[in-house]
Amino acid sequence: MITVKTISDLRQVRADLPYQVGLVPTMGFLHGGHLSLVDKAREECASVVASIFVNPTQFGPKEDFGAYPRDIPQDLKLLEQHGVDVVWIPETEQMYPPGFQTWVKVEELSRHLEGEMRPGHFQGVTTVVTKLFTAVQPDKAYFGQKDAQQSVVIKRMVTDLNLPVEIVVCPIKREPDGLAMSSRNVYLNPDERKAAPVLIRALKKAENAFLHGANDAEQLREIMIETIENESLASVQYVSCANPDTLEELTGSIQRGLLSMAVNFRKTRLIDNVLIGK
Amino acid sequence: MITVKTISDLRQVRADLPYQVGLVPTMGFLHGGHLSLVDKAREECASVVASIFVNPTQFGPKEDFGAYPRDIPQDLKLLEQHGVDVVWIPETEQMYPPGFQTWVKVEELSRHLEGEMRPGHFQGVTTVVTKLFTAVQPDKAYFGQKDAQQSVVIKRMVTDLNLPVEIVVCPIKREPDGLAMSSRNVYLNPDERKAAPVLIRALKKAENAFLHGANDAEQLREIMIETIENESLASVQYVSCANPDTLEELTGSIQRGLLSMAVNFRKTRLIDNVLIGK
Repeated sequence: MITVKTISDLRQVRADLPYQVGLVPTMGFLHGGHLSLVDKAREECASVVASIFVNPTQFGPKEDFGAYPRDIPQDLKLLEQHGVDVVWIPETEQMYPPGFQTWVKVEELSRHLEGEMRPGHFQGVTTVVTKLFTAVQPDKAYFGQKDAQQSVVIKRMVTDLNLPVEIVVCPIKREPDGLAMSSRNVYLNPDERKAAPVLIRALKKAENAFLHGANDAEQLREIMIETIENESLASVQYVSCANPDTLEELTGSIQRGLLSMAVNFRKTRLIDNVLIGK
Repeated sequence: MITVKTISDLRQVRADLPYQVGLVPTMGFLHGGHLSLVDKAREECASVVASIFVNPTQFGPKEDFGAYPRDIPQDLKLLEQHGVDVVWIPETEQMYPPGFQTWVKVEELSRHLEGEMRPGHFQGVTTVVTKLFTAVQPDKAYFGQKDAQQSVVIKRMVTDLNLPVEIVVCPIKREPDGLAMSSRNVYLNPDERKAAPVLIRALKKAENAFLHGANDAEQLREIMIETIENESLASVQYVSCANPDTLEELTGSIQRGLLSMAVNFRKTRLIDNVLIGK
């Protein structure tokens, strides 16, 4: 496994990688979710590149950029174990040179859900992903369904900019009790950790209701809110039953939908989602 | 010379082009200015690609997108004569697919001068240029100094997005009477055409004053305004003496500057510029 930092080193290494090249972009502090992306890339591609970059521009000024967990030595060990060929650890000064002022923006899709709660978040994501794609020139890139909106936004960006990369979205990986794996789960104290599966419980409860005929979007949102509100440590930031393509909130009876939510546990914000219908 | 329309055809042809590949992006209706870019690319690169695309998103709603002059057969003849290897004529539907909503924006530099007069113009330019670069993957790309701000904005974008392309800016080509070559010059009626060299006269007058010790930015702007106002068919939209790097308007005594202006002749808007100092 080769580790590079500068873009010029990356380009040099990239030039010799056999086709196809799969990229797994990460912010490090890797868990089973990330590793499932690596495994999928390893299965599908001749070459696997992983990037580790805690991208400052996708964090709001009051968010957890400084506190975001980091453990590069452990990450490198895991990536090597999972057969990654190249790890790129970009330097912030090269990603955001002095005077930086160029942003890639996906307009409508970035306005909903996470974008509404985290202004500027997707502008940071789409800009850094464009830069990762431009530097690595992957044939495929792997993202997790956990960040459902992110995948929709990035797919739109790839279409709109005609980027020659296929976006592969992999299923959410969960802890044995159903909590979606996230680097931010380490923020939870033991009580919060115990309460955190309330997100998937709420999603599953709405999904079950839907499977048993409750197909009214508002009712499904109410089921989720009610479930979360029964958990005293949890407080709902939003719940959503949205069109999976446009991310617009649905009303009335639905045939398919993206159920999603953001829930706060004191200072820890967790998200989760489930796709329902066909 | 090969002519392609779709991005997939372009990519196929591109894959076989010997290094280095030079790109000359144009909106067609080619004149000596464009051809000087082609000649420069031909001189410096093993392969020369030219694109012809009247990019709708860089025109304002009240601007001349519909009226913009077009003559593809003549363009192809000229490009062939000047030794271009590949001409790419993108289709609007492929450049702007249904639901298109992704924009590349260079923020501060796009706000001044042309950007102030033409809101959204540079967002259209930087988005389409990103797409041209992504599709063609040129090693070098050639732009004219006539659109001085455009070159500054695109260079910033290339730095910020770490695009692997070198931007080459070529000098303004002028008619025998000094009028900067422009596809829009055909809009001028004979009287206006006769009056149009007032732009370069005004710029030269300010430059001469500067060379003779008049280094006050405000005074230089006044010289330019006065010259234009003496021409009854011309009306000033703006004159500027700006920092050539930041494009911010200068005040007080200066050592170097970008003198630039936009001048209206009835419905025809002309721009020109001169760099002064070192």
